[in-house]
Amino acid sequence: MQEMILAEGKVLPGGILKVGSFLNQKIDTAFLAEMAEEIARLYGGCGVNKILTVESSGIAIAAAVGIVMKVPVVFAKKHRSSNVDGETYGADVHSFTHGTDYRMVVSRDYIGPEDRVLLVDDFLANGQALNGLIKIVEQAGAELVGCAIAIEKCFQGGGDALREKGIRVESLGMIESMTDDSITFRV
Amino acid sequence: MQEMILAEGKVLPGGILKVGSFLNQKIDTAFLAEMAEEIARLYGGCGVNKILTVESSGIAIAAAVGIVMKVPVVFAKKHRSSNVDGETYGADVHSFTHGTDYRMVVSRDYIGPEDRVLLVDDFLANGQALNGLIKIVEQAGAELVGCAIAIEKCFQGGGDALREKGIRVESLGMIESMTDDSITFRV
Repeated sequence: MQEMILAEGKVLPGGILKVGSFLNQKIDTAFLAEMAEEIARLYGGCGVNKILTVESSGIAIAAAVGIVMKVPVVFAKKHRSSNVDGETYGADVHSFTHGTDYRMVVSRDYIGPEDRVLLVDDFLANGQALNGLIKIVEQAGAELVGCAIAIEKCFQGGGDALREKGIRVESLGMIESMTDDSITFRV
Repeated sequence: MQEMILAEGKVLPGGILKVGSFLNQKIDTAFLAEMAEEIARLYGGCGVNKILTVESSGIAIAAAVGIVMKVPVVFAKKHRSSNVDGETYGADVHSFTHGTDYRMVVSRDYIGPEDRVLLVDDFLANGQALNGLIKIVEQAGAELVGCAIAIEKCFQGGGDALREKGIRVESLGMIESMTDDSITFRV
């Protein structure tokens, strides 16, 4: 992952790491399959029976992990409105990337107390999206096994805050710091 | 696919087929892998070197097909605004399902004249989304090899209109007609 980020990633002004050429928008599927195998290995034997992600950029990696782990994948949808109906679990999330608020919802049919859930996403920065998914897991009465992330921007603190709460967070690439012309990884 | 639709699908008022329990929102990954294998078989030997889909429900099946066919997957993003910059290909699309218009965009970096493109999506109804993707393939000067769809609602005509233009469209489940209590497949 570190080699891939160094070879393909671009640092944009404002601390944005652009990895559209292999992880978003254009997906390197051989690399996607490798990431899925590694996540399945990390969480093998943990009794995961459901993967939860949020649309849209998390879907590809979540689906790939689900195929390898042979468990169903559920994805939360992003709604603009905050209206709640009785048929969904939901959490309000603020996106710092886009400067917007949205409501993340999952039908009650698709997650429940019998589930041992692995959260999968492409990016972890401040942790807003993961925190929303964790609320949904709690509402469903399901058990959170942990989180699996392609790229964590450690300097934004979301991952470490979750780890301090005792939540297992595994990130395949961990960026400790980033400037316009250098990327430092946590090892 | 027919068995899956009959076992899991629900027909909602207004001709809507709900397959959230295996194809959207909750994805049956064993079935997803089977669909991907079948699509890879159908388009094997056609020289496909890129898969194009549109966020978000098409991403899972496109990624799965990409892994099997060992080619990169590109997904078009949906934007609300119709502003065009020089860095993207784009097409304006009307969504009958949601009653909204959006602009579908793909970075010029991710598709070009060297590409032989397979379009992959979960649903084909009136063909608005596929027509948008076809415009993007044309703008890129790429070659369209064909389309692979999980479920086609034939009675909405989009698939047959494309076939009449000479475009290869392969749909794994083809619904000829649908009433509140019956589903008829095209065989």
